[in-house]
Amino acid sequence: MTPGEIRILPLAGVPEVRAGDDLAELFVAAVGEGGLEDGDVLVVTQKVVSKVEGRVAPVAEKQAAIAAESKRILRRTPGGMVISETRHGFICANAGVDESNVAQGTVVLLPLDADTSARRIRARVKHLVDKDIAVIVSDTFGRAWRNGQTDIAIGVAGIEPFLDYRGTLDTQGRELRATRIAVADELAGAAELVMGKADGICAAIVRGARVVRGRGSVAEIVRSPGDDLFR
Amino acid sequence: MTPGEIRILPLAGVPEVRAGDDLAELFVAAVGEGGLEDGDVLVVTQKVVSKVEGRVAPVAEKQAAIAAESKRILRRTPGGMVISETRHGFICANAGVDESNVAQGTVVLLPLDADTSARRIRARVKHLVDKDIAVIVSDTFGRAWRNGQTDIAIGVAGIEPFLDYRGTLDTQGRELRATRIAVADELAGAAELVMGKADGICAAIVRGARVVRGRGSVAEIVRSPGDDLFR
Repeated sequence: MTPGEIRILPLAGVPEVRAGDDLAELFVAAVGEGGLEDGDVLVVTQKVVSKVEGRVAPVAEKQAAIAAESKRILRRTPGGMVISETRHGFICANAGVDESNVAQGTVVLLPLDADTSARRIRARVKHLVDKDIAVIVSDTFGRAWRNGQTDIAIGVAGIEPFLDYRGTLDTQGRELRATRIAVADELAGAAELVMGKADGICAAIVRGARVVRGRGSVAEIVRSPGDDLFR
Repeated sequence: MTPGEIRILPLAGVPEVRAGDDLAELFVAAVGEGGLEDGDVLVVTQKVVSKVEGRVAPVAEKQAAIAAESKRILRRTPGGMVISETRHGFICANAGVDESNVAQGTVVLLPLDADTSARRIRARVKHLVDKDIAVIVSDTFGRAWRNGQTDIAIGVAGIEPFLDYRGTLDTQGRELRATRIAVADELAGAAELVMGKADGICAAIVRGARVVRGRGSVAEIVRSPGDDLFR
């Protein structure tokens, strides 16, 4: 690797999962011996996490599921989509309840607590292959002001979600006052680039990224409404 | 490279730039012979683009510059920051007028048209080393609902800003109805991961990303207000 380089490696070969499957075991089997390294960031899509956690409902109950998953409805479109705040504080379409890439007749809900999901995968990987990795659970969200969706982090384990430059000095020796980069979101988006939407790639390894090890939580990323100037 | 892998390479060795400098020439010199490949995405930070384009003002004129760069003020904080809509339609802090990593006594404004900036760099690279690359001009923006900033695209050349899955089929053969990934933003965020804020790295090469070649514009990413459900 070139100094400072980051590699993003799609994790191919993970079979279709079922409720109760051990994701870490499937990932370790898919990457093979020596496939994971200390310091790797493993980005796992929400959908595969929800499936193993049994967060699935019949499609007939989709509207009820969206209502149950929502703390607050922000908007309803004529086409029947809602933008709502989920139990976790995320603002997204249909409270994250989604029909794509799931078995016919079913919908998938967000994990109850994707930080815990991420921690479970991280601990199992440590146990299985003795590698100290970070884990991010990602999902595809729309956003204000800009068209299109990007993948962002809905759960993290083993890292802080931010690289906080506040109080550090810039190249001119001046203090950076506001900069706190949401690296967990950038890592989730970077991993999306190797996944596609129809290729069945449900995870990727980001190798070489400068992150801060720690016991961070995605709850730190969720903005308190009184603090939000961007809407 | 592993099949499907993406590499993100920081572009080190670019000297401090001045108005009128030829960025493409500096980048080509910094990467050396064979350093750029057809299909690479070159992500360049806004700040270095603005500097070569002379988009600089005295710090004493910062407030006047913010006012001049803003079509509309959304909010003012007690601390004196504004969130506004820029001439380009971007929603960001201080209309993108920024003091960090610029010479003492000055502020840097956003490029007048960063699509044009990107196209100029792309054309010059083609001329200098006969490589067909895409170029993204990136900047660090806050966002609604989530703390922290991420790098996003404010100018593109040689690619479409989206990977549009609408009308394609998922792994279950079902039509994807809403998915249009803002890959230009994900690429900008991915490149930020190798840059840091105080390392003087002003560009990165993303190699191996699946993008759609085309004559896209960041104007396609800017959401029309009537169409924006996320705020």
